[in-house]
Amino acid sequence: MTSTLDASPTTAAARAQEWFAAFEDALRARDVDRAAGLFARTSFWRDLVAFSWNVTTVEDRDGVTDLLRATLDRTDPSGFAVSEPPDEADGVTTAWFTFATAVGRGRGMARLVEEDGGPRAWTLLTTLYELTGREEPRGPARPKGAEHGVDRERLTWSERRERERAELGRREQPFVLVVGGGQGGIALGARLRQLQVPALVVDRRARPGDQWRSRYESLCLHDPVWYDHLPYLPFPDNWPVFAPKDKIADWLESYVTVMEVPYWGGTEVRRAEYDPAAAEWTVDLVRSGPDGEREELTLRPRHLVLATGMSGKPNVPVLPGQDVFRGEQHHSSAHPGPDGYAGKRVVVVGSNNSAFDICGALWEHGADVTMVQRSSTHIVKSDSLMEIGLGALYSEEAVAGGMTTEKADLVFASIPYRVMHEFQIPLYEQMRERDADFYDRLEKAGFRLDWGDDGSGLFMKYLRRGSGYYIDVGAADLVADGDVRLVHGQVDRLTEDAVVLGDGTELPADLVVYATGYGSMNGWAADLISQEVADRVGKVWGLGSDTTKDPGPWEGEQRNMWKPTQQEALWFHGGNLHQSRHYSLYLALQLAARHAGRETPVYGLAEVHHRR
Amino acid sequence: MTSTLDASPTTAAARAQEWFAAFEDALRARDVDRAAGLFARTSFWRDLVAFSWNVTTVEDRDGVTDLLRATLDRTDPSGFAVSEPPDEADGVTTAWFTFATAVGRGRGMARLVEEDGGPRAWTLLTTLYELTGREEPRGPARPKGAEHGVDRERLTWSERRERERAELGRREQPFVLVVGGGQGGIALGARLRQLQVPALVVDRRARPGDQWRSRYESLCLHDPVWYDHLPYLPFPDNWPVFAPKDKIADWLESYVTVMEVPYWGGTEVRRAEYDPAAAEWTVDLVRSGPDGEREELTLRPRHLVLATGMSGKPNVPVLPGQDVFRGEQHHSSAHPGPDGYAGKRVVVVGSNNSAFDICGALWEHGADVTMVQRSSTHIVKSDSLMEIGLGALYSEEAVAGGMTTEKADLVFASIPYRVMHEFQIPLYEQMRERDADFYDRLEKAGFRLDWGDDGSGLFMKYLRRGSGYYIDVGAADLVADGDVRLVHGQVDRLTEDAVVLGDGTELPADLVVYATGYGSMNGWAADLISQEVADRVGKVWGLGSDTTKDPGPWEGEQRNMWKPTQQEALWFHGGNLHQSRHYSLYLALQLAARHAGRETPVYGLAEVHHRR
Repeated sequence: MTSTLDASPTTAAARAQEWFAAFEDALRARDVDRAAGLFARTSFWRDLVAFSWNVTTVEDRDGVTDLLRATLDRTDPSGFAVSEPPDEADGVTTAWFTFATAVGRGRGMARLVEEDGGPRAWTLLTTLYELTGREEPRGPARPKGAEHGVDRERLTWSERRERERAELGRREQPFVLVVGGGQGGIALGARLRQLQVPALVVDRRARPGDQWRSRYESLCLHDPVWYDHLPYLPFPDNWPVFAPKDKIADWLESYVTVMEVPYWGGTEVRRAEYDPAAAEWTVDLVRSGPDGEREELTLRPRHLVLATGMSGKPNVPVLPGQDVFRGEQHHSSAHPGPDGYAGKRVVVVGSNNSAFDICGALWEHGADVTMVQRSSTHIVKSDSLMEIGLGALYSEEAVAGGMTTEKADLVFASIPYRVMHEFQIPLYEQMRERDADFYDRLEKAGFRLDWGDDGSGLFMKYLRRGSGYYIDVGAADLVADGDVRLVHGQVDRLTEDAVVLGDGTELPADLVVYATGYGSMNGWAADLISQEVADRVGKVWGLGSDTTKDPGPWEGEQRNMWKPTQQEALWFHGGNLHQSRHYSLYLALQLAARHAGRETPVYGLAEVHHRR
Repeated sequence: MTSTLDASPTTAAARAQEWFAAFEDALRARDVDRAAGLFARTSFWRDLVAFSWNVTTVEDRDGVTDLLRATLDRTDPSGFAVSEPPDEADGVTTAWFTFATAVGRGRGMARLVEEDGGPRAWTLLTTLYELTGREEPRGPARPKGAEHGVDRERLTWSERRERERAELGRREQPFVLVVGGGQGGIALGARLRQLQVPALVVDRRARPGDQWRSRYESLCLHDPVWYDHLPYLPFPDNWPVFAPKDKIADWLESYVTVMEVPYWGGTEVRRAEYDPAAAEWTVDLVRSGPDGEREELTLRPRHLVLATGMSGKPNVPVLPGQDVFRGEQHHSSAHPGPDGYAGKRVVVVGSNNSAFDICGALWEHGADVTMVQRSSTHIVKSDSLMEIGLGALYSEEAVAGGMTTEKADLVFASIPYRVMHEFQIPLYEQMRERDADFYDRLEKAGFRLDWGDDGSGLFMKYLRRGSGYYIDVGAADLVADGDVRLVHGQVDRLTEDAVVLGDGTELPADLVVYATGYGSMNGWAADLISQEVADRVGKVWGLGSDTTKDPGPWEGEQRNMWKPTQQEALWFHGGNLHQSRHYSLYLALQLAARHAGRETPVYGLAEVHHRR
């Protein structure tokens, strides 16, 4: 016993060393039970592509055993090395590490606790960041640009770009077709280009950034700049905290140029069909040129990525009387902004982000605005969310403290979804306390507030259902002060000049805005491919948390996002700028591995429990 | 004596501490002699705007005395603090420091040597980087973007941009008009915007980057990426080492958008005149719109910056017979590239960078090419220049070693021009040795090589005369191998179908390219303002080194660049990307100080010794 005690690690560094040495030793011996025994009884191993060719989390020793039995031999992990001095706090040792697999290089983070007299992994994150043989041309491996020497076959950069433009989609088929050219599609397009995967991003709007330009005038990002960087090209340090929509649009357009993302604007996908025998898609498109000329084209990519936006498929309620209503009515996504509505009576149906943004701008422009709250809403003040919710990882202070975007993303990714709400609840308790007066005023005005089913707040709502909240940038005061009228209930019907609620309340209206949210992204698959394929892949987004609008069973990861689906060669990509940046890496690596002809057996392909 | 020895500093840190304490003490006491006594007998103090409101170097204790007598009281320097652990090598202590002045904040670098029993400054660099009250909105001071709260007078970002576009040059006069929208004008425009100085950049070409797009096809930057970053927005790490011209053009265009540089393309300056009484310029312009509509405008800026390019004023020789020659003839700057010249006989007059680039591309495209060498040329191989000439400051290795662009620029700036050649000579000796075979082959082929008048090589040639060299990226081999024919001499005249040299040699030609360089930038002043003003400001560029094409007397700094000239409110800006980046800061600060109404008494305004 004494010698055991003497040998036990006393520092975080020694503890981490010991654990990784034991882990690598067990893996090398292919001793799955021994490896699983190095995990705590309650534990989570999240793997982003490195072991599983999937985005997946397994739980406890049984889960670890299952993952390793399926993947250990072919993954052949080795070279685990602690990459910076581990931290220790509250009995948890946090260790960053790198490792290699049969096909590439990875990095990760472990949280170790003491259990049964030795260090045990409570959480383990493993991520692949590079495929051997497909290393990105960056830093010391950047392209030379000029080809020195003399060469009678030389093509200049612009000649090569021109040739590529002329041939892509005609003589050259893209290996990957990305439908949707917002931040998600563009970030993925940039990564695929870096990974030498022939890809094409298409979008129905003319120019990159038009996805943002076309939104209501007052729109600014609700997430702060530190959270929003795209891969490769961070915003300069004079970039606004909350970028206005047209500025982010200009950035995306420049980004496409600078990163040389193959991008077709003005391109509508008419129909896509998968041929399993040929292992390729047939995608019919119509491409509009700058002078309005239209060309019909058929592409045959091997993989199809729907990056059409988790907020891209408008949920428009179908209501009696919509055909007789004489005013204007549109979904929030089609709202042009407040110009021209001064003095008009506007009914905004909904009480989340878009509803508040639109109500605020309309009020500022002198409209007479009524908000229809249909169900309770979670509101947090932007400043409080920034400071308490994001500050540790994504803030000027975090940057000054040496936190990089990449590291922050990995910290974020390292927290298992199963217990993430436990980390979130105390943060929202702080916010509730800090802004108690604000919430009092809103409740006194009759606004129905919630904090998520379990009090875990905004980010969990985002992950679970992608809706149900407002990040307050000022418009909540309009409701609290009664400047924007608040009513409750469901809309029953429209008349020629009013919205009628279930209780018979009539709201005279010149304009009705349906700020009623968005449907699951597999709706895009129904439109572009078939209802059958949409049903086969099922609902997109959500964790299966069995909370409002996120039915169980537990999935452990976001449904269908950035990982293989039940439809071969069909992928979903999107989310906020953070997710578009970070998860585009893993999706791009999965696609690059397939392009490189590597074996990519998928562990733990998720079953489908919900169609939408 | 013993106590003196005991008290003498023994470490670099202590030595630097001692020196700065003594220096600050002398300055605070306004004891100029004591301060000057802290300099070595041979010493150089280079000041970028901080003390002198000029870009100036003074030498030895007399120079220091003169500078301080003129500037000390109003500069009121204080708070000198060593900002990182000093280095010591070969008896020289190198110390980085920060300080404050009456109007702003500065940083600098000192090289201390032991003389007369104590540390003495051998070189001192002082630079202003920030004006109090005009701090740039960056990092923690970045703009918020969204204006939270509700505000009926709110303008969105795009409305504000739109209003600014509509009013600038009409209802709002720019304080600064920058003529020339290449990298120089754009970098300055970005800095002025950050400094809240109303400015406008105009260029006769339609789009930012067209300055590069219009050049010959094969052109790539001859300087590597680490040397080429623009302010605020560094290239991403996948940027090519030597950016092709169209890629750098696209970058510049994106940069203008992202940095919100007020930029008018398609704008020709017709005439500019200064009214000393009103202290403003009258500038007549013609602006062409996207649909070819033309508008005549008169602007009234307070300051006029010519950023038309040190390689912007073509030197076209006037030769008998140019009117009878039946082929095509143009200056290298107008050369369209090699397409269409296959099988043609081309005579390229000149043997520097453009000549070699053009000869190489023409040969690759099957032209029959003759190079006319008129005088000796300095050639270094690109790889050797990168490794030996720039590697310590601007390379992947330097970046990996923690060297930032900003620090590298200051190191570069800290070496006094008077002795810079002494630092350069050994580097070029290394290159000559490393590539001895290459030089042998060139000389055997009859090519006349030089290494600068004093063997100090390329960079000194660039600073002294801006010409006389080729950074070899492959075309030198064509001359060495005889693929490109080499002849010597001056062109005497043209006939209908040939170029005739002074010795009577006839060179049959379908195309003559005059790769004959560029004239001094004050030629632009002659064109746009008047010959009188051009003569008053005199030659632009050069150090007065009394070497070929850089006549004395010694100036100490580059003539007329980035600093006040003999014409009030007229400035010159330009150079390579490094200079455009670094010196735009000091020019912008000088202009911002004037915009802010600060007193800016200029110390050491240079006299004019040469008209061009």
